[in-house]
Amino acid sequence: MLTNLTIALDMMGGDYGPRSSIPAAVNAVNANAHLTLILCGNQQVITQELEALGSLSHPRLVIRHCSEVVTNACEPAVAVRNKKDSSMRVALDLVKSGEAQACVSAGNTGALFFMAHYVLKMLPGVKRPALISAVPTETKHPVYLLDLGANVHCDAETLYQFGIMGSVVAGQALGCDNPKVSLLNIGSEDIKGHEGIKQASQLMQQCDYINYIGYSEGSDIFSGKADVIVCEGFVGNVALKTCEGIAKLIMHKLIKALNKHFLYKCLAFLLRPVIKKLYKRVNPDQYNGASLVGLRGIVVKSHGNASAKAFHAAIDEAAREVERQLPEKIAAIFEQTHPLTK
Amino acid sequence: MLTNLTIALDMMGGDYGPRSSIPAAVNAVNANAHLTLILCGNQQVITQELEALGSLSHPRLVIRHCSEVVTNACEPAVAVRNKKDSSMRVALDLVKSGEAQACVSAGNTGALFFMAHYVLKMLPGVKRPALISAVPTETKHPVYLLDLGANVHCDAETLYQFGIMGSVVAGQALGCDNPKVSLLNIGSEDIKGHEGIKQASQLMQQCDYINYIGYSEGSDIFSGKADVIVCEGFVGNVALKTCEGIAKLIMHKLIKALNKHFLYKCLAFLLRPVIKKLYKRVNPDQYNGASLVGLRGIVVKSHGNASAKAFHAAIDEAAREVERQLPEKIAAIFEQTHPLTK
Repeated sequence: MLTNLTIALDMMGGDYGPRSSIPAAVNAVNANAHLTLILCGNQQVITQELEALGSLSHPRLVIRHCSEVVTNACEPAVAVRNKKDSSMRVALDLVKSGEAQACVSAGNTGALFFMAHYVLKMLPGVKRPALISAVPTETKHPVYLLDLGANVHCDAETLYQFGIMGSVVAGQALGCDNPKVSLLNIGSEDIKGHEGIKQASQLMQQCDYINYIGYSEGSDIFSGKADVIVCEGFVGNVALKTCEGIAKLIMHKLIKALNKHFLYKCLAFLLRPVIKKLYKRVNPDQYNGASLVGLRGIVVKSHGNASAKAFHAAIDEAAREVERQLPEKIAAIFEQTHPLTK
Repeated sequence: MLTNLTIALDMMGGDYGPRSSIPAAVNAVNANAHLTLILCGNQQVITQELEALGSLSHPRLVIRHCSEVVTNACEPAVAVRNKKDSSMRVALDLVKSGEAQACVSAGNTGALFFMAHYVLKMLPGVKRPALISAVPTETKHPVYLLDLGANVHCDAETLYQFGIMGSVVAGQALGCDNPKVSLLNIGSEDIKGHEGIKQASQLMQQCDYINYIGYSEGSDIFSGKADVIVCEGFVGNVALKTCEGIAKLIMHKLIKALNKHFLYKCLAFLLRPVIKKLYKRVNPDQYNGASLVGLRGIVVKSHGNASAKAFHAAIDEAAREVERQLPEKIAAIFEQTHPLTK
């Protein structure tokens, strides 16, 4: 474990803002004695919330006042241009300047992506950053899905690069040398999909660094067939949010079915903890946080309606990525394996 | 109910071919005294299977021998050009000639789409046909999702037309005048998504025929917020197959969790019927069949690994669409509401 770790937090983002980010920050520093958090946001609000939790004078919670907030409705380009003293921007600036080794935000995904891109810049050779997250599977290991919405459309080269970055992330997280990489498509046969997918498939096949196993369909995501699944942002975002929706639907229908008969009602009472735990496990977006990869710095995006627990998990994820030196590892691989960008 | 109904079946498509299509056909004619089925496929195989079920001489099961089969690996263009005596093609030709009022196939989706497009042609004014299916929601009513993979990418005008067609299908199926139509996007705010989506959103807003309610995200699909959700084929296909995958994952995890303790194990035994029923309900693709809309004829696509029960459900869906005169209704609406195509 690192003996000195500083992470900047955008306290004002997400549906709950400081109501979830403050307890998350307090729990995170209490759980990790080497962690310092810089709390970016409205000083008055943060002070009040910290006071309420009896943590105002915590030596490893440093407040950095910011006068602005990036709302969910804010256009990314407007956020970059006009919101220079927003909690999101200041957190990113702290990573850029080296004062923090990573940052976490639950705010507007598009704005965070644009701002992070603008402030931190791409790693050499990387065309576009991607949003990546671990998704549960039927096996013991999760699968890493990218891009989850940072890039609406992606060309073949970009998808191919996502394969490399996904491979580094999964390799580090799963502790394996040769993670299996797959492209998300609408059929497993070679003839399926559009030209961009087919070209990306060829690029991955030709790349020694990627252990490419061919196409996956939506139904394969959770089978554990692949360690990394690559798709464009629009598709990945819809897939992940569809998971959220269907998990909710199944739980809803299950509880409804159980409530129909007295016997099942009793069982439902006993089963509630099992169902609750399961719901959390299959609802990855809520409980992991997603990371922006490809940038010269570590940025973790927590879910817009992240609870304190989920925001805490995102802080932990940022800490792990600092330890794994993810940007440095991705840069090293791109230097070796990416002859297409000079 | 119609007193005279003839449906052509592609008996050789799907993973199980006649093993599921034959029992489905037998059950369907036994359940509906007005239904005649034309069984297109290898005469010898069909005869054997019918004989095994004691239904060889059924007066409303007519065999039409076809010497070819369209396999899953067959390129759509090749299927159209070379497979003129395939069970899929012959079933479509029977709709074209008017001998059958609809057809059902569980075969290669891409080939079926191309062939149906080539044989039956588009309705006047319709740019592209779409694959549509009912998906369960938290409410009593399903939501109609299109396109599910017939068109990999779609422009704004095509998405807009899908909104009209989806509105007709949902209006007929749900028995309502003003079904709520939504566009699938990666955020609910106006600024989200790509240009095609934004333009389609404007077209829908301006159309008097569409009760447009704005964007939906993947997580909204199952909430019942909309009656129709429109997206391009790649996205719809991934979303639907993701549902399949996550439903399987949840059932897998639920059964595993229940098997951990003796008490839960006993409960699992009692709960099995509830879980099984639920799995079927949230796995729509398996149990409904999807329809190709926008063509001058009715074509229902059953799932590739459809069981006899699922194939039977697809036959029933085709029968309902004949009754509702879906192509005629769509044509009438396009005549009224589609000034962009002359």
